[in-house]
Amino acid sequence: MSGLNRLSATAAARKLAAREITAEALLADCLERIAERESAVRAWTFLDTDGAMRRARALDAQGATGLLHGLPIAVKDLFDTFDMPSSYGSPIYANHRPAWDAACVAVARAAGAIVVGKTVTTEFATFHPGPTRNPRNLQHTPGGSSSGSAAAVADWMVPLAFGSQTAGSIVRPAAYCGVVGYKPTFGTVARVGVKMISDTLDTVGALARNVSDVALFVAALADRHELLIDQSTTDVPRIGLCRTYEWNRAQPETIAVVEDAGKRLSAAGASVRDVVLPPPFAGLAEAQTSIMVSEVAKSLAYENLVHRKDLSADMTKMIDAGLAVSPQQYDAARSLTRTCRAMLPEVFSEFDVLLAPSTAGEAPTGIAATGDPLFNRIWTLLHVPVVHVPVARGPHGLPVGVTVAGAVGADRATLRAADWIHARLGGSE
Amino acid sequence: MSGLNRLSATAAARKLAAREITAEALLADCLERIAERESAVRAWTFLDTDGAMRRARALDAQGATGLLHGLPIAVKDLFDTFDMPSSYGSPIYANHRPAWDAACVAVARAAGAIVVGKTVTTEFATFHPGPTRNPRNLQHTPGGSSSGSAAAVADWMVPLAFGSQTAGSIVRPAAYCGVVGYKPTFGTVARVGVKMISDTLDTVGALARNVSDVALFVAALADRHELLIDQSTTDVPRIGLCRTYEWNRAQPETIAVVEDAGKRLSAAGASVRDVVLPPPFAGLAEAQTSIMVSEVAKSLAYENLVHRKDLSADMTKMIDAGLAVSPQQYDAARSLTRTCRAMLPEVFSEFDVLLAPSTAGEAPTGIAATGDPLFNRIWTLLHVPVVHVPVARGPHGLPVGVTVAGAVGADRATLRAADWIHARLGGSE
Repeated sequence: MSGLNRLSATAAARKLAAREITAEALLADCLERIAERESAVRAWTFLDTDGAMRRARALDAQGATGLLHGLPIAVKDLFDTFDMPSSYGSPIYANHRPAWDAACVAVARAAGAIVVGKTVTTEFATFHPGPTRNPRNLQHTPGGSSSGSAAAVADWMVPLAFGSQTAGSIVRPAAYCGVVGYKPTFGTVARVGVKMISDTLDTVGALARNVSDVALFVAALADRHELLIDQSTTDVPRIGLCRTYEWNRAQPETIAVVEDAGKRLSAAGASVRDVVLPPPFAGLAEAQTSIMVSEVAKSLAYENLVHRKDLSADMTKMIDAGLAVSPQQYDAARSLTRTCRAMLPEVFSEFDVLLAPSTAGEAPTGIAATGDPLFNRIWTLLHVPVVHVPVARGPHGLPVGVTVAGAVGADRATLRAADWIHARLGGSE
Repeated sequence: MSGLNRLSATAAARKLAAREITAEALLADCLERIAERESAVRAWTFLDTDGAMRRARALDAQGATGLLHGLPIAVKDLFDTFDMPSSYGSPIYANHRPAWDAACVAVARAAGAIVVGKTVTTEFATFHPGPTRNPRNLQHTPGGSSSGSAAAVADWMVPLAFGSQTAGSIVRPAAYCGVVGYKPTFGTVARVGVKMISDTLDTVGALARNVSDVALFVAALADRHELLIDQSTTDVPRIGLCRTYEWNRAQPETIAVVEDAGKRLSAAGASVRDVVLPPPFAGLAEAQTSIMVSEVAKSLAYENLVHRKDLSADMTKMIDAGLAVSPQQYDAARSLTRTCRAMLPEVFSEFDVLLAPSTAGEAPTGIAATGDPLFNRIWTLLHVPVVHVPVARGPHGLPVGVTVAGAVGADRATLRAADWIHARLGGSE
């Protein structure tokens, strides 16, 4: 084992392009790592090791394809794949084989990616957990719903993984597992073939071990090459330190990491100023919850009406809560959202990005629950791009980090600011 | 045959509730009409006559279920059904059997609807036509993409049908076939399980023979009972006569029907005033086209990458056009859309609804093409609710009507205004 699995996607892509390494060798090291660790971490619902190896050899023989040429990737099991089971974390679909690839999976393959397998999602990307453990400490949750994707990337099994976020399903597991998570501006990556649970919130994104890698992945998926970070960012961002209206729910390690980040980034030359979001934003976390549970109930109508006995108690409780949201409550939450979105240009007029908590604290103990998405709700609802960057360790030695949030559509600036921040706060792993 | 198939959904629901008729008798008349006419009209891709009859008898035995109790419905073959093939108008999915019902189909069934079968859609709800003919004159197109749904409703085969609209796929076939088509505010009815082609445009809606019926259907699907029209609307709407920036493309029969509608509605007591949309709206039809083809290309990535040889030339041409839209062009079109949406409250401050052309003219001759959605593009892009109401006949004796467009979220007011307008202009069929 030559440790190629520890290469970042960006570094591996460079070496593959220069023919310094082969896709086969890179994949072999990833598969060896998976074989070594999967029984403990349980990141995967399905592995196609033979198919992946055939594909790696074919790519080596074929030569350059696209931006993801020869890179092993993990696909969250909320995403359809024509050649692998797609179960969405639910026993209802235990044996489901879709007729297609999700559009973004098809695009990843066309860009040269090697799909190693499917990773554990919570039940329909909500709260009922799968078997995955946090690779940093197996006694702790990896977070969810992109549990397996975050764990696989954190544990050096693959350099890139698909995630999706409706409340905090990319940022939370990225934070708990100590990796980078990127939820692009809503709509950046096509959602076709990803099991929908919330039409106005579900967003496809990426997990990796550094900011360049998530940028590379989404640049390929969205055909937006302007997102690529070819060299370290030198533009110094204007940063708004945003404690959010949920600040009183932050645990000491989160308070410390955010306050400390502000000081260190200021010392590194950034303009850092406190920002208080306009008063209506105080209602957004609750609005997100109402909209999400209402849309989950609508989206899973078939499953609830026909297969309710195969849904978890967590799930039926959420669906019932969603059915109890009246059209008037739903419309009011959507109206508040529109009001706040209209205020965002003003908020971002003086800042390139906002720096905010990603989670209440480090990963909770146990795997019976995946933690709380409270600090992620408002950003997902606002449709802004967010990048989680790992920064420090909490009292149990588990990762803690920060959310870098940008203006709608300003994904390039957000990624570059996140890269700059990660370089100054996170060091390199 | 007792002609129960000629009952409106609203009238049939009333008689079913009063036990004046049975679901079995209603369905039997619908099936008889289908048997009589289907070989000429070709509205259906699949019929489940036995299953529908078993279901009707079960509903009769069971008694009241929901708002759609005992009503036969048609499901556009873009919508998934767990018990019938779902081919999306494409040979790629000729034998596809989904693992689920589309959420809205599941909700319709739970509300007591009887799914008679699946109706013809153009290829992936775009432009390559199916075999359906216009029941008003078999030498003409029924329009598309909801071709079979419009034809089935117009030809008295069923009182209600599902449609979906990305450009003009509900309004155009409704107009050409002379029925009512309702595209609700974007997002009103869940899209889960409907083959997505354009994430920011695809909207689920309804076709029927009067406004009360489409209101009933969507009230049930969206669990928004405030949409129901229990009795004839007496509130006199404030109407803006909106010729749109595409007016120079309107044919004489459309010009006549719009101008005449303004005069007659004014004579009937409505306030009718000309309205000119703000100048940026002049770019919306082109913006809609760019956004749509770009999103179609992204949505059908799997089909284009893996099954391109099974796509029509119409389809690959659209996908290639979509792939040629740069992210900058796409973003500019989205930006213009946001600008115009933000102006809508001002536009609607003085009007309850706008009255506009639905189509350039009556249904073109032949079934090799389904006509032009030009006049529908801007309303779909703006996410506003629209109701098409049939009003008159064109030079070939085919139907012509008008679009009644309301403010985002003002579906109740829009439906009531459309009902008032239909009563005064359309008479009853």
